[in-house]
Amino acid sequence: MTHKPNSSGRPVIITMGDPAGIGPEIIARALRERPELCGQVLVAADIPTLRRAIEVTRALDATKDKPPLLEEIVDVAAWAKAPADRLCAVQACVLLEPVPWGEISGAAGRAAADCIAYAAQLVLSGKARAMVTAPVHKEALSAAGLTHPGHTEFLQALSAEHAGVMLDQMPVRMMLSSPCLSTVLVSIHVSLREALEAVTQARVLETIRITAAHFLRSGMPQARIAVAALNPHAGEGGLFGREEIDIISPAIAQAKELGLNVSGPHAPDTVFMRARQREFDVVVAMYHDQGLIPVKLLGLEHGVNTTLGLPLIRTSPDHGTAFDLAGTGRASAASLLAAIDAAMRMSVGPGPSP
Amino acid sequence: MTHKPNSSGRPVIITMGDPAGIGPEIIARALRERPELCGQVLVAADIPTLRRAIEVTRALDATKDKPPLLEEIVDVAAWAKAPADRLCAVQACVLLEPVPWGEISGAAGRAAADCIAYAAQLVLSGKARAMVTAPVHKEALSAAGLTHPGHTEFLQALSAEHAGVMLDQMPVRMMLSSPCLSTVLVSIHVSLREALEAVTQARVLETIRITAAHFLRSGMPQARIAVAALNPHAGEGGLFGREEIDIISPAIAQAKELGLNVSGPHAPDTVFMRARQREFDVVVAMYHDQGLIPVKLLGLEHGVNTTLGLPLIRTSPDHGTAFDLAGTGRASAASLLAAIDAAMRMSVGPGPSP
Repeated sequence: MTHKPNSSGRPVIITMGDPAGIGPEIIARALRERPELCGQVLVAADIPTLRRAIEVTRALDATKDKPPLLEEIVDVAAWAKAPADRLCAVQACVLLEPVPWGEISGAAGRAAADCIAYAAQLVLSGKARAMVTAPVHKEALSAAGLTHPGHTEFLQALSAEHAGVMLDQMPVRMMLSSPCLSTVLVSIHVSLREALEAVTQARVLETIRITAAHFLRSGMPQARIAVAALNPHAGEGGLFGREEIDIISPAIAQAKELGLNVSGPHAPDTVFMRARQREFDVVVAMYHDQGLIPVKLLGLEHGVNTTLGLPLIRTSPDHGTAFDLAGTGRASAASLLAAIDAAMRMSVGPGPSP
Repeated sequence: MTHKPNSSGRPVIITMGDPAGIGPEIIARALRERPELCGQVLVAADIPTLRRAIEVTRALDATKDKPPLLEEIVDVAAWAKAPADRLCAVQACVLLEPVPWGEISGAAGRAAADCIAYAAQLVLSGKARAMVTAPVHKEALSAAGLTHPGHTEFLQALSAEHAGVMLDQMPVRMMLSSPCLSTVLVSIHVSLREALEAVTQARVLETIRITAAHFLRSGMPQARIAVAALNPHAGEGGLFGREEIDIISPAIAQAKELGLNVSGPHAPDTVFMRARQREFDVVVAMYHDQGLIPVKLLGLEHGVNTTLGLPLIRTSPDHGTAFDLAGTGRASAASLLAAIDAAMRMSVGPGPSP
């Protein structure tokens, strides 16, 4: 019997997401398509819901005759001793019975949240390397009484509590990656008008620092960080806006003084093309669509969302719960697989022992 | 002897651009690479400058042993009678001698402007189908005493004069196209802050109408026009900005009342991806970078710029004079060839007889 091959004995935790969505079945599908990953991951789930998902994907995928066997385990120590080819899962939430597919419910929201909290504690305590989160539903979380609208805010709160600091001492940023392009956003879900106001020297510098810290932790201390300008042609010397001169360039200068490998501000309409051609490792984008238009254009299927700034590594697929697809087994596992690969790549450091 | 095959007897005019830039040599190179185009085009140039460019490209491309022969002609009537395999050019400007490569000069700017004016008159009078403009240099135009900073403004002025109307009665828009994606911009060279102010109901509607008129003239009366939103997630029902509700949706409703095949406002981060997958024929973008980031990402090499709103068809390659490359023969003709192909495709209508 071969034990889990991960030398550190620490798994990557995958949370099931909303049990009424496609989360459980894309997890099952991902591990059918790439069974070797079973040696690296532990699924935090409601086990009966996961069994149902495995059945759904089995019915639709008759060509693969040996899906990995599900093994329920009790903790990470048990995981390390389990056979490498078993799909190990832990019961990380309480659910009286599997919820109906495609329906918003507080029960589903609570189960999803419990799995996230379970996984976060494992990663924060060093017992797991990283976490990959399947999609949750905002309204289900809200129905469960959670005040956090999504993963990011929830993980920020759990991390701040773990570190014993205030929320505002744990600023986070979102990184979106497609196979050839990664971008970190200065602001996300605000109007473009408000996004302009969020382009401050402090916030741009903070974004660069959080980005650099992430790449440092992922084994790329000299990652080439390109900072996009805000205005067309980077303002053309002040002709089309002064933010480059007054705000972005000073922030870049400060970052350089800190020894960071950063350049810019670069003309927005070509910086992503240049990054795609490997001139840069990551682009700091000034607003949501500046970064997301190019990343989504290059491959929504393989998009990965990474939360930067937290004392844990968390990635997720770049899609939602897809309630309309849930239970059909047709949802693609490509983005989840890309998220698992990214989490493994990012958690290469030694880390604390279990 | 085979005469020019264009049944209407009307050529596509290519202007040489700034004679100190790469314009003349990319024209020579384009017609070496695709000699069959000689049957369709007429070059408006300084002939000695064009001869020099042909020499430059000949030296670097020894594998093609039969470049098209240059034939100087006097007018379009002579063009129609010339052999199909000759590179026909007309002396459309006055230049005492070829200018040095890579230098800004008033003489170069004036020669470039004269070629543009010559070509525009041919197209406006119906003697030519369309015009394709090689790049000009802003400062050279300025040194020549021209008040128009670029092609668009110059052609707008010539067209308004020809039509006997005021400039503001001839609103223009820029369309950028890569092989899989076309976008028309509500505003171009202004700061992002000013671009927000340019998103008015009248201007969005005008952009949609100009776009629809262009596709109608190009033989696509039912072109599917997608209108991008301004804010992330199209504002998520007013949560991240109200421009979609207050401005863009009403403009789209007006356009629909006019019978146009238009939809939106669509979330900016996915509308370009959807257009690339052929769901739409063109995307109306709310600001410069929203449209140019995706188009440039998909292929700067094959980018084509089209001026919409004028009573003439004009395309151009999506790059500048590249003074640093001029005279080396190394500049790629790919974007110019794409512009020639686009101009031919767009000028399929019968048009007036010569």
